[in-house]
Amino acid sequence: MNSTQLTQNFMQVTDRSRPVHGGNRQWAASLADITPEQILDFSASINPLGPPKSAIAAIQSHLTELSHYPDPEYTLLRQALGKFHQLSPEWILAGNGVAELLTWVGRDLSQLTSTVLFTPAFTDYYRALKTFDCQVEKYPLLFDNQKVSLNPELPEVTNSHSKAILINNPHNPTGYLFSRDSILPYLERFALVVIDEAFMDFLRPEQQQSLIDLVPYHPNLVILRSLTKFYSLPGLRLGYAIAHPERLQRWQEWRDPWCVNTLAAAAGIAVLEDIEFQEQTWAWLQLAKSQLFTGLSQISGLSPLSNAANYLLVQTEIAGSLLQKELLQRDKILIRDCLSFLELGDRYFRVAVRLEHENQKLINALSLR
Amino acid sequence: MNSTQLTQNFMQVTDRSRPVHGGNRQWAASLADITPEQILDFSASINPLGPPKSAIAAIQSHLTELSHYPDPEYTLLRQALGKFHQLSPEWILAGNGVAELLTWVGRDLSQLTSTVLFTPAFTDYYRALKTFDCQVEKYPLLFDNQKVSLNPELPEVTNSHSKAILINNPHNPTGYLFSRDSILPYLERFALVVIDEAFMDFLRPEQQQSLIDLVPYHPNLVILRSLTKFYSLPGLRLGYAIAHPERLQRWQEWRDPWCVNTLAAAAGIAVLEDIEFQEQTWAWLQLAKSQLFTGLSQISGLSPLSNAANYLLVQTEIAGSLLQKELLQRDKILIRDCLSFLELGDRYFRVAVRLEHENQKLINALSLR
Repeated sequence: MNSTQLTQNFMQVTDRSRPVHGGNRQWAASLADITPEQILDFSASINPLGPPKSAIAAIQSHLTELSHYPDPEYTLLRQALGKFHQLSPEWILAGNGVAELLTWVGRDLSQLTSTVLFTPAFTDYYRALKTFDCQVEKYPLLFDNQKVSLNPELPEVTNSHSKAILINNPHNPTGYLFSRDSILPYLERFALVVIDEAFMDFLRPEQQQSLIDLVPYHPNLVILRSLTKFYSLPGLRLGYAIAHPERLQRWQEWRDPWCVNTLAAAAGIAVLEDIEFQEQTWAWLQLAKSQLFTGLSQISGLSPLSNAANYLLVQTEIAGSLLQKELLQRDKILIRDCLSFLELGDRYFRVAVRLEHENQKLINALSLR
Repeated sequence: MNSTQLTQNFMQVTDRSRPVHGGNRQWAASLADITPEQILDFSASINPLGPPKSAIAAIQSHLTELSHYPDPEYTLLRQALGKFHQLSPEWILAGNGVAELLTWVGRDLSQLTSTVLFTPAFTDYYRALKTFDCQVEKYPLLFDNQKVSLNPELPEVTNSHSKAILINNPHNPTGYLFSRDSILPYLERFALVVIDEAFMDFLRPEQQQSLIDLVPYHPNLVILRSLTKFYSLPGLRLGYAIAHPERLQRWQEWRDPWCVNTLAAAAGIAVLEDIEFQEQTWAWLQLAKSQLFTGLSQISGLSPLSNAANYLLVQTEIAGSLLQKELLQRDKILIRDCLSFLELGDRYFRVAVRLEHENQKLINALSLR
């Protein structure tokens, strides 16, 4: 992809009349002439069971700390994350959401000749890459028979030793799960391998395909993780990177010193220990996703793709943006259109898995058409 | 200043054994073998009256919103800020503290040949300037007879039309207040004028020397403001920039889309309307600062500088870092040493104005020596 193309794509995704991310209730509410609170939001892939009580209690008990600056080392949070992942804290850097960490990923990527992306790709990758004038090489995922697979061209990427690859695992918006084995060869072939595992924790530990345990052996490996999707705290902002301490120290020197707020740091420590909430979530997701998948499959003109995430990408014979508008105005339901994913456009929409009675409401609304 | 010098300075200020900012209670507590909560903190210049009840109430009432993403346009917050400053919201960009906004200031500054700084300068300026490999020209402020004045060399800056100037008003750590009239000529002479007014709101409106009202007439003017010092919310993170909409739109496209957390946005809206808290703060500061200034002046070997801020820079015959250590270990009082300000070193320390009984405790502790 040349830089003109990148600019064109970026212009498209920053068209301000339509949001480029899910979860923009403000925009949807104004479109339907209702309040944001009235919307049943399937457009953001957030755990509907949360936030856990443990997070709210931690926030409440830290309100008295707000008149102090956060600890710029985030010592306690990084210790808790280190314990959770069985890693020493210097391998971990907390961030103001994964999005803030992507900014510094972008600065590292700009030092290489180009970055390989599987497309469609999370819109914020393009933002971070453009901020530092990175070159992008796009490799479209293949869609066939309601399944997603890798592009066979990828093994042919030339001069990959001067390039980076940025992988979303599970992939957004398809929910495709890359196996560990399929990623391992990239560690030898690319100068930098960034894996955004923002949705990985929705899988039970034994099903996860995380590469976190390999970070100590690969200075060219960066893992990004979120605590706001599984624990339902996107309004609080909290993510972290796992990578070589020298890389993280460099990022820390580039960015502002207090980027994670005190309440997010406290909530993060609390939720990592909330095993009950974790178990509840995995149990809910298994049943609720099966229900939503089956319900959507039975609607004529809709074909959800099998995947490994807490959301479903659905192929649709009726334009996704039209369905979005109808559901919003008639049912106050917000789904994620796919117009900002150039490779998908109006032939797809994305929905989060929510509580079973909410999923049923969505299925009913879509069936009515 | 050449880039080697800048790197050397930066290495010095990032020596991790000693913090480069005030308010690092974690570091101080470990040094004195006490908990952070036991420390009476004069090192961070935060309003001791806060946070206001209005802020805490707004946070409490928005906890149920945490499972949604923030509105990436921060519509309501920018409306409230626009109303407060009598500006249209598109001239305002909220940030995750002034520090986050400084990052994007740095990216703009990197497009110019160099940035003029009055020194000593806020440590985070060097961070943001280094992130984008900016060149720096330093103009030391003059210290004479407990007064600060501008360096007469400044009018001689050559080729200033291709340069920027970054001014802290009131200046940190001296508290020096630049008059509007003294800044106005820079608007004609420099390609970009950035004024960090993070402490300006501690002055009553009629005493302020803000240039906010001039922003609509000068596309090369950027004002930075904080809501966390006056309203005592540094743990929550909230600042904003006032500048031409095209510049702010560019910054918004560079950075992550949800950088201000939902609770900070809600608290910001609430405190702007809290006129009672504002009045209380101005009344407290007038009396408490006078008490602290007089008390410190009467201690042999100490000379506080007259200034316009909610903190005092104090010239000391005993090394500032030694005093810091003694006060911390004996009295659990933390003052700000000035080692990270190269031009000040051990001959100065900085203290926030706190409640009168706390100020008295500091005066007593310093008198004991």
